[in-house]
Amino acid sequence: MNYSIIRKILAVVIQFTGAFLLLPAACGLIYGERQAFTYLVLSIVYLAIGKLAEPRKIVDQAFYAREGFVVVGLSWIVLSVLGAIPLVITKDIPSFTNALFETVSGFTTTGSSILENVEGLSHTGLFWRSFTHWVGGMGVIVFILAFLPMTGGYNMNLMRAESPGPTVGKLVPKIKETAKILYLIYFGITVSEIFLLLIARMPLFDALCIAFGSAGTGGFGVKNSSCADYSMLQQGIITVFIIMFGVNFNAYFFILRKKAGEVLKMSEVKAYFGIIAFAIITITADIYKMFPSVFQAFHHAAFQVGSIITTTGFATQDFDRWPQYSRALLVLIMFCGACAGSTGGGMKVSRILIMYKTVYREIKKYLHPRAVTNVQMDGKTMDRSTLHSVSVYLSTYMFIFVVSMITITVFENGLDLETIFTSVACTFNNIGPGLSKVGPTCNFNMMQPVTKYILMFDMLAGRLELYPMLMLFTPAVWKKG
Amino acid sequence: MNYSIIRKILAVVIQFTGAFLLLPAACGLIYGERQAFTYLVLSIVYLAIGKLAEPRKIVDQAFYAREGFVVVGLSWIVLSVLGAIPLVITKDIPSFTNALFETVSGFTTTGSSILENVEGLSHTGLFWRSFTHWVGGMGVIVFILAFLPMTGGYNMNLMRAESPGPTVGKLVPKIKETAKILYLIYFGITVSEIFLLLIARMPLFDALCIAFGSAGTGGFGVKNSSCADYSMLQQGIITVFIIMFGVNFNAYFFILRKKAGEVLKMSEVKAYFGIIAFAIITITADIYKMFPSVFQAFHHAAFQVGSIITTTGFATQDFDRWPQYSRALLVLIMFCGACAGSTGGGMKVSRILIMYKTVYREIKKYLHPRAVTNVQMDGKTMDRSTLHSVSVYLSTYMFIFVVSMITITVFENGLDLETIFTSVACTFNNIGPGLSKVGPTCNFNMMQPVTKYILMFDMLAGRLELYPMLMLFTPAVWKKG
Repeated sequence: MNYSIIRKILAVVIQFTGAFLLLPAACGLIYGERQAFTYLVLSIVYLAIGKLAEPRKIVDQAFYAREGFVVVGLSWIVLSVLGAIPLVITKDIPSFTNALFETVSGFTTTGSSILENVEGLSHTGLFWRSFTHWVGGMGVIVFILAFLPMTGGYNMNLMRAESPGPTVGKLVPKIKETAKILYLIYFGITVSEIFLLLIARMPLFDALCIAFGSAGTGGFGVKNSSCADYSMLQQGIITVFIIMFGVNFNAYFFILRKKAGEVLKMSEVKAYFGIIAFAIITITADIYKMFPSVFQAFHHAAFQVGSIITTTGFATQDFDRWPQYSRALLVLIMFCGACAGSTGGGMKVSRILIMYKTVYREIKKYLHPRAVTNVQMDGKTMDRSTLHSVSVYLSTYMFIFVVSMITITVFENGLDLETIFTSVACTFNNIGPGLSKVGPTCNFNMMQPVTKYILMFDMLAGRLELYPMLMLFTPAVWKKG
Repeated sequence: MNYSIIRKILAVVIQFTGAFLLLPAACGLIYGERQAFTYLVLSIVYLAIGKLAEPRKIVDQAFYAREGFVVVGLSWIVLSVLGAIPLVITKDIPSFTNALFETVSGFTTTGSSILENVEGLSHTGLFWRSFTHWVGGMGVIVFILAFLPMTGGYNMNLMRAESPGPTVGKLVPKIKETAKILYLIYFGITVSEIFLLLIARMPLFDALCIAFGSAGTGGFGVKNSSCADYSMLQQGIITVFIIMFGVNFNAYFFILRKKAGEVLKMSEVKAYFGIIAFAIITITADIYKMFPSVFQAFHHAAFQVGSIITTTGFATQDFDRWPQYSRALLVLIMFCGACAGSTGGGMKVSRILIMYKTVYREIKKYLHPRAVTNVQMDGKTMDRSTLHSVSVYLSTYMFIFVVSMITITVFENGLDLETIFTSVACTFNNIGPGLSKVGPTCNFNMMQPVTKYILMFDMLAGRLELYPMLMLFTPAVWKKG
């Protein structure tokens, strides 16, 4: 294990966290809140500690996948702990466990909350909470890669460990340029959303926080009612943008390069929109009797479907009260998730697509035992090792899911299985609200501390695509060599 | 598709069904029930139809995996329909859908019932219902292979399509001999159970039916209380035998050949007993306060764990009222299932073991990227195609599970998600009772007919390990060629 590079990157992460805190501090100063000073002081402290912790020189440039996974896992833990401290000090969230839960939920863009009363928080705290979504959405390491001068061949291993999806493609030959382009697209779409929300007469503070929450597909709102009190137009804008943030960012890159035709060839994007259309139409049919008009049913179906498939977790309706078909379908698309290479979580549409094609090929193989059959995606043949790692991924996924759920049942005897099942499902897939006692109108505060730590692990494992977190807990990783 | 061989095998299946009906007829005659005559007449009718339906000669001996899957799928459907008819005619179960559900549940050794009052059935009907478990446990096709003179090289393809588990091994070089040995072991253990139950003073009729139900890991009882009213000793005997029937039959073959040492090398068998021990001990710890003594808690934990992991489904306790940890763990071992090559259902311990080892290898690969890592079972290296087909199997499994569940929610709006989830889980894994409204003290009668047909599909798909049923519904299978 190359500890000097790990130390270097962690030191940089600490400095970045310090820099991030300046934004809520500025927001707090505008509102004249005393919390702003805490954020300011902590910001300086983090910057100083980070600077001091940097190793003088890096002895060894060797950096493999193992180091990539470990450093990404550790970075996210450091980031969350440092991010929770201002919430505790300012007494916005006095309990450390709760503050950590909220910050992990923020950075992993889950959006599950332990707050009974969101509106009781200071503007500074609310802004920070929403801003963690924006940072976590595209990824901290990608951010560092984009804006920090770093040498060595370890960039790809870092990006692979943090980016969602079965394969990571470079948009342009240089990894640094790829990271920059991704952040520019991300920044551009976020600004567009803020702009449109302002035109639709949303207050600036709300517009910023909601845009951060939809960009990172996070889901923290600034009102107790999530998005229910916004106007139909504002909700409509949010719907469009959350669905946009669930699209593979390569698509936007193609559009920027004026190759829109390429987008139509991306089978994952087509499948993503297909699933969304199917879900919106059938849920509209299922719930239209509950609304004054079919259009309103459609409007709310679209918002909820977009919010859940992209794993955002905003709500305009208490979908826990919808009929069983709608509830079950929403749970299902929780697992499905958005496109690889987007800010959305879940298993990713491409993985589901690959598995579906593999199963279909298996059946075909029995029909024509001697035919050579391949699994193709976007016209390219998938090699066996990608197929294999997708299957392994799904198995690992199920394994972590089952162990989390069963461990929680030991500590949470008072909760029904639906609550426990959906609380793991919605944190592991980085959604936010589940069903029953963790439904959109409820929160996670009533759970035992140990349950909260298990769910935090699930959020981090879900966001970082399992392996970084699993690595941290594998003793062999820490052995010399 | 080779239709003449398919016709030949189906004709034989019809004759066998006729022969099977003679047993309940005999039982009915002893009790002097008029239902016996219906069974007798139908027996003769089936034997005649089967004889007439046989093709004069088989033009083509070509018989591939495709034919194997199709004929096994069709055989089980024919068997179930023919088996349901006497229940309808004798008015034991007047509704055809319900009678078919009960028969499918019987032959697939599921044990889910639509009967409100089991004790209202005639002895003839009860005997037939339990006997379907015994026939379905080892498999009809295996039975035919063992006792019918058939030529041609298609036997292995038939056996592979009907037998549970990721790989099918021949015990002895000749497939016919293998089938015979399996049935002899099966018969031997069943007789031992009947004998011990009689010594423990269970009435003969109960002993026969309970032994059939445990041998096939089915779960139909003859009392409304399932096994709750039997004595502790009787329950203990049943516990031991259901766990025995969940062991890979190869183990008994080794013991017969005086190679008991080989058994200790079977990692699946070790894992199976490990899981059972873990579940019994932790559930005992979870429920001991509900019982007058720890021993009683242990006794009931052992019965329920054995009953559910082997997918039998007998109950001595309403485990739906147990604490959440116990309920959740029971649901989990529902999916796990028993050993491959046993009469139990579920995913099979060996598949779980293979996937676990694959995931572990994946992590090891990141640690030592250049090391050659293999997945080993019982000291033998698993080839990549076995690993691959296990992953594909699990994906197909999840796929069918999800589609069934979501379809049922469309028709069953009145039911909670826990009921729907566990009703699919317990039919697909061939268990019997689920939780909530399909718990051990309830039944499936309140469901819509369409739901019942979906669950019947799941029971058949679960028993036949997915592909035979999927094949029947793949249009390409029926194309010429």
